[in-house]
Amino acid sequence: MATVLVASNRGPVSYTLGEDGELDARRGGGGLVSGLSAIDSQDSLWVCAALGEGDREAVRRGVAEPGVRMLDIAPDVYADAYNGIANSVLWFLHHHLYDIPREPVFDAEFRRRWEAYRAYNRAFAEALAAEADEGAAVLVQDYHLSLVPWMLRELRPDLKIGHFTHTPWVSSEYLRMVPDDIVEELLWGMLGADELGFHTWGWASLFIGCCSQRDDATGMSQGVWPSGDPWYGVTYRRYGVGKGRTRVRAFPLGVDGEELRALAYRPEVDERVALLREEVGDRRTIVRVDRTELSKNILRGLLAYRELLTVHPEWRDRVVHLASAYPSRQDLESYRAYTASVAELAEEINAEFGTPEWTPVLVSVEDDFTRSLAAYRIADVALVNPVRDGMNLVAKEIPVVSEEGCALVLSTGAGAHRELGQDAITVNPFDVSQTAEALHTALSMPAAERADRTKRLAAAATALPPQRWFLDQLEALRGS
Amino acid sequence: MATVLVASNRGPVSYTLGEDGELDARRGGGGLVSGLSAIDSQDSLWVCAALGEGDREAVRRGVAEPGVRMLDIAPDVYADAYNGIANSVLWFLHHHLYDIPREPVFDAEFRRRWEAYRAYNRAFAEALAAEADEGAAVLVQDYHLSLVPWMLRELRPDLKIGHFTHTPWVSSEYLRMVPDDIVEELLWGMLGADELGFHTWGWASLFIGCCSQRDDATGMSQGVWPSGDPWYGVTYRRYGVGKGRTRVRAFPLGVDGEELRALAYRPEVDERVALLREEVGDRRTIVRVDRTELSKNILRGLLAYRELLTVHPEWRDRVVHLASAYPSRQDLESYRAYTASVAELAEEINAEFGTPEWTPVLVSVEDDFTRSLAAYRIADVALVNPVRDGMNLVAKEIPVVSEEGCALVLSTGAGAHRELGQDAITVNPFDVSQTAEALHTALSMPAAERADRTKRLAAAATALPPQRWFLDQLEALRGS
Repeated sequence: MATVLVASNRGPVSYTLGEDGELDARRGGGGLVSGLSAIDSQDSLWVCAALGEGDREAVRRGVAEPGVRMLDIAPDVYADAYNGIANSVLWFLHHHLYDIPREPVFDAEFRRRWEAYRAYNRAFAEALAAEADEGAAVLVQDYHLSLVPWMLRELRPDLKIGHFTHTPWVSSEYLRMVPDDIVEELLWGMLGADELGFHTWGWASLFIGCCSQRDDATGMSQGVWPSGDPWYGVTYRRYGVGKGRTRVRAFPLGVDGEELRALAYRPEVDERVALLREEVGDRRTIVRVDRTELSKNILRGLLAYRELLTVHPEWRDRVVHLASAYPSRQDLESYRAYTASVAELAEEINAEFGTPEWTPVLVSVEDDFTRSLAAYRIADVALVNPVRDGMNLVAKEIPVVSEEGCALVLSTGAGAHRELGQDAITVNPFDVSQTAEALHTALSMPAAERADRTKRLAAAATALPPQRWFLDQLEALRGS
Repeated sequence: MATVLVASNRGPVSYTLGEDGELDARRGGGGLVSGLSAIDSQDSLWVCAALGEGDREAVRRGVAEPGVRMLDIAPDVYADAYNGIANSVLWFLHHHLYDIPREPVFDAEFRRRWEAYRAYNRAFAEALAAEADEGAAVLVQDYHLSLVPWMLRELRPDLKIGHFTHTPWVSSEYLRMVPDDIVEELLWGMLGADELGFHTWGWASLFIGCCSQRDDATGMSQGVWPSGDPWYGVTYRRYGVGKGRTRVRAFPLGVDGEELRALAYRPEVDERVALLREEVGDRRTIVRVDRTELSKNILRGLLAYRELLTVHPEWRDRVVHLASAYPSRQDLESYRAYTASVAELAEEINAEFGTPEWTPVLVSVEDDFTRSLAAYRIADVALVNPVRDGMNLVAKEIPVVSEEGCALVLSTGAGAHRELGQDAITVNPFDVSQTAEALHTALSMPAAERADRTKRLAAAATALPPQRWFLDQLEALRGS
């Protein structure tokens, strides 16, 4: 039995089955792993899904890392819930990514997949209910597990339930596309929590807006924390349940500056830096690092770079765009097409402007953190221009790691813009001309100003490192 | 000099140049032609663009129908304004149609096209300024001419300027993608009018919302007409111009019942009815008539029909879906792809369910009003499911013309839903399962109920026929 539980689709460990039949465990990283390390692991449990065949084999053999419980959800249920709903519907909703004339389609097939999503959420709720100590705190993560809070509340009214959304939240206008009963289930699923966390107040208030536009069963409430900070939330009156209240708050996840700098200045990164410098020569660098994710806006980033080279030809042969854009979700057709378009456009730009000595864009499709860190270090300009992004940690990582200071071109669509906007060069992610001008301004920024801004950006980026972020939520939850 | 002027992209007449060098004039139809016929044509002038080579030749030869002035705008300017901005940007904005990961792109090329849009609007404003009598009323039409009101106000402050939007209006959230200076120009362009008309209060209030979220130079105002009706509007204070006020109102265009019925019961339509009945046999009919326009939602309509045949197999071989979907805007790639997808999906459905005796879907790609009227007459069910549509006159025409009463399945996205919703079967246009059920309900509706509802639908549809619609606006404008 545990007093602090975390639930997320992906856990802190994954198993691979070797040819010799041995299971090999590999621990992952990320904000949550780092955050949970802040508390005594004897009292904590992380509930996650078995993702691959190795994980499933570990469950069957009863192999488990201490403090981790993997759920072996039937592969077809898992695929329908994870790909069919979480990544194809909820992700698209929260990021406003649909090609409206064609998608979304809420048909019988969607209903079948929604059943799977419900079953997958129920498996988590039941595992958490079985493992939690009386009055324990449960921190449920992200859009994969939107229905868990209410399911868990019904099973275990004694628990303190929190939920954190790592993505943006959908606007009430965009959510209107979704069938009413599904919207109800989604919002009530979330409202089962005592505390809902978002990266920014913007996303939090969109959630409140979705609830308050539903019917007279929900309304907005506000109050004051013991600390004196105001809180906002949703009060509700639900048939057969009575009154309740869910508090809503922003916990803007930052980076652990010390840890990140230590990682970025290891010898193997030094080697990559040397290799990159050789490729780049004495030219300036514009760096971006993303999955080829529809929301990351890589295409318009490349278009802006092309416009920069057209409108400001003085930068030709004096700048290289290092674009890490490693493939993601290639099981979805729209992602495959997007990945192909990125490669195509980069080639077009190289064909239009390149010379035997100069390749204007270097696209890297490897998911290689060492190379990313090396690119961070030599970045003169960081380009972070998502159309909509919960936080975007790259915008926070680059200023922390950059060797000589780096000018940040940052989209208003990134959650990070709320904290970093003042020292970044702000762009509307749809405005390619403005982005091209911002790149020019960034490349032209005097070194002293760049260094000053970078210092302030790094300070803002490290204001709420993962451990603090996690403990703050836990504290809020326990005090709720 | 004229006392009433209308301005629209497409005029009431078009010319073709014969092989013998003769110009052949052809008068068109539509609500505006019908509306303008209500006033004395000696005092009125219609300003429109020369669309094709025939029109341009007419301008060059000084040939003109009385009461019509065609503007010979340079073909490249016209193409950039009409295709490049009006249909590729403003239409997509007002209908929320963009595939966000890829479009819109506001780059140097967009700016070049915007200049053309401005020049095209200016040509209209100058022609209107030159032709209008002191204090004349000018009724500017639609999203092609959004900038005309302010341009005209600057040239001729004495005029009464109205503007009517035949499309929906974009939400303030969606408009945020557009560069600020363009938004300013668009909204100020419209605010040059004394009166702005929309098909529904919903679209009108979205316009007001866009203005009131801009800055403290604009705000919402309201008052009462001499008739006692309330009005709403936007008050503004503009640098160098002073204070002003634009009233905003809904004028929901309807159909002229008598004229439409006369058209629909001509002998040539009788012949088409007989032919269609032969094809359909004694089966029920589901009728839709649209351009293959991204906003019309033809694909999800076909998906709903497929789900109907799957979930309610009792309708197999007992219903035929007559889908008129004539190609539109085939110069745009997204429209070509959409048209191809419609044909493909219809074929798939016919392959899956069809028998030697029964073709489940009959797609007609001819823009043939006679056939459409024949389909209207024999419709048992009308399917009107746009994702977003200013009004949708098909939803109003079918109940007026239908021989034995027809059940209307109508999307909340259509402006017409505000007036017809009560007697229609309402659907969320994205909810294919709900639409399939609505089709089942519509097909199963008892004849008496169907006839009753159709009567009420026809009454609502003819409440504001074109002449009245036009005169109401003229009256409001003169009284402003």
